[in-house]
Amino acid sequence: MQIIRFRTADNQLYTGCDYDGTTASLVEGDLFDKLTDTRQRKNVATLEVPVVPGAIFCIGLNYRGHAKETGMDLPRYPVVFMKNPGAVTPHKSDIVIPASCLETPEVDYEAELGVVIGREAKNVSEARALDYVLGYTCANDVSARRWQKHAGGGQWVRGKSFDTFCPLGPVLVTADEIQDPQNLAVESVLNGTTMQQSNTRDMIFSVARLIAFLSESTTLAPGTLILTGTPEGVGFARKPPVYLMPGDHLQTRIQGIGMLENPVIAEKSGN
Amino acid sequence: MQIIRFRTADNQLYTGCDYDGTTASLVEGDLFDKLTDTRQRKNVATLEVPVVPGAIFCIGLNYRGHAKETGMDLPRYPVVFMKNPGAVTPHKSDIVIPASCLETPEVDYEAELGVVIGREAKNVSEARALDYVLGYTCANDVSARRWQKHAGGGQWVRGKSFDTFCPLGPVLVTADEIQDPQNLAVESVLNGTTMQQSNTRDMIFSVARLIAFLSESTTLAPGTLILTGTPEGVGFARKPPVYLMPGDHLQTRIQGIGMLENPVIAEKSGN
Repeated sequence: MQIIRFRTADNQLYTGCDYDGTTASLVEGDLFDKLTDTRQRKNVATLEVPVVPGAIFCIGLNYRGHAKETGMDLPRYPVVFMKNPGAVTPHKSDIVIPASCLETPEVDYEAELGVVIGREAKNVSEARALDYVLGYTCANDVSARRWQKHAGGGQWVRGKSFDTFCPLGPVLVTADEIQDPQNLAVESVLNGTTMQQSNTRDMIFSVARLIAFLSESTTLAPGTLILTGTPEGVGFARKPPVYLMPGDHLQTRIQGIGMLENPVIAEKSGN
Repeated sequence: MQIIRFRTADNQLYTGCDYDGTTASLVEGDLFDKLTDTRQRKNVATLEVPVVPGAIFCIGLNYRGHAKETGMDLPRYPVVFMKNPGAVTPHKSDIVIPASCLETPEVDYEAELGVVIGREAKNVSEARALDYVLGYTCANDVSARRWQKHAGGGQWVRGKSFDTFCPLGPVLVTADEIQDPQNLAVESVLNGTTMQQSNTRDMIFSVARLIAFLSESTTLAPGTLILTGTPEGVGFARKPPVYLMPGDHLQTRIQGIGMLENPVIAEKSGN
């Protein structure tokens, strides 16, 4: 099932599937238990994020090509940080460049496969790990590079947690529809130009390995979102660097899942 | 008001105040709007955490004495990381040493003042920041040091996010009862021996400064918890080092707030 959360013109929030760009089939039930397609169609006014994550674990340097372009050694263990769950923003909503990042551009894109945990996972083996996945979505780990490197004392959370720095969606594709999460094309396209073009098979730590690692002595609650790292082609590693600017249009595409689109705007002062 | 969340013998969850160790006065209403003391007393069977945080921002190296003992330079900006919100554990509940940390001890204590945001805070000035605080609680930023240093690729989140690694409570003291959050004694006591003994006046970045910094272009939702850093005296900086061991008993004390007590046990294998 390809799940969306959406609002109708009267601002009511629904869960749906089979979204055709205008209407969706109404889905009833619990996202983490059982969903039923009512086959009753509704007009979709706006999309919301397909899942509201309770926590967002993120993995750094998880593609060989990206580790290489940053000049970093391949990590021996997954590099784990988090984003503020409040940073999520849906398909077609704005990525807002913080006022502090406008004068000297620094905000970068990172197309990533997002993995949503469906049931409580703790001390899960790599062999069983994918059984705990509810589904997959497109995500972008938007990052303010100077904040990431300097203003957080070497810790990355601050520069990755600004409002709208986690575009998510449009759909959550349930795990049964993704045969192999380690064979999906991942792309980002900025203003029509392909910036990242890779495949999840370049991951250093697989989705299953990440779930095993993160769940060691740690309960991953249903609704936990894992951003699995970004491939090469990010803006700061380019010569010259490319940063997101107001007026830009960013697409995050993952094979078998969909295309997440976000315009880029500047934060209004006094906001 | 000194707020607790508690369960009665029949496992019902309530909010209360005026807890005397056995009974509490039942409180009705919304923690983030208006609470009313009903003056109806109930027997308290077990305490829960006083607030379930939606996100936990943590500050590293925020006491001059602690920055010195770790041999690190004083940070120019707050060092920001996060803990998994699922890591919280209440007063008198166990801190569980992960199986991977048993053979070579590495789990450390960090007594911290916890600050709970009461209403949406974004681009808040330092001068206005304390207006957004709902209240204060005792917290401990329990940390697995080898995981923190090596297994997270230099990022601290993984080693700080194991289950039970965020003891919290017993009470949330509303902001009106804390005249000056920068003049509170902070202590940790391990098996009766005082290990940390400092005062929030040694903070490099004040509570107000931290809220301003974290809320820059970022919405701090009601229920966001900020752990404000730990003073000197942590276990890994001692000669010889002191780490938490099964059978230990840890107290986290903050003046005007209370004493959070947690026994330490080992994770059962196959758990």
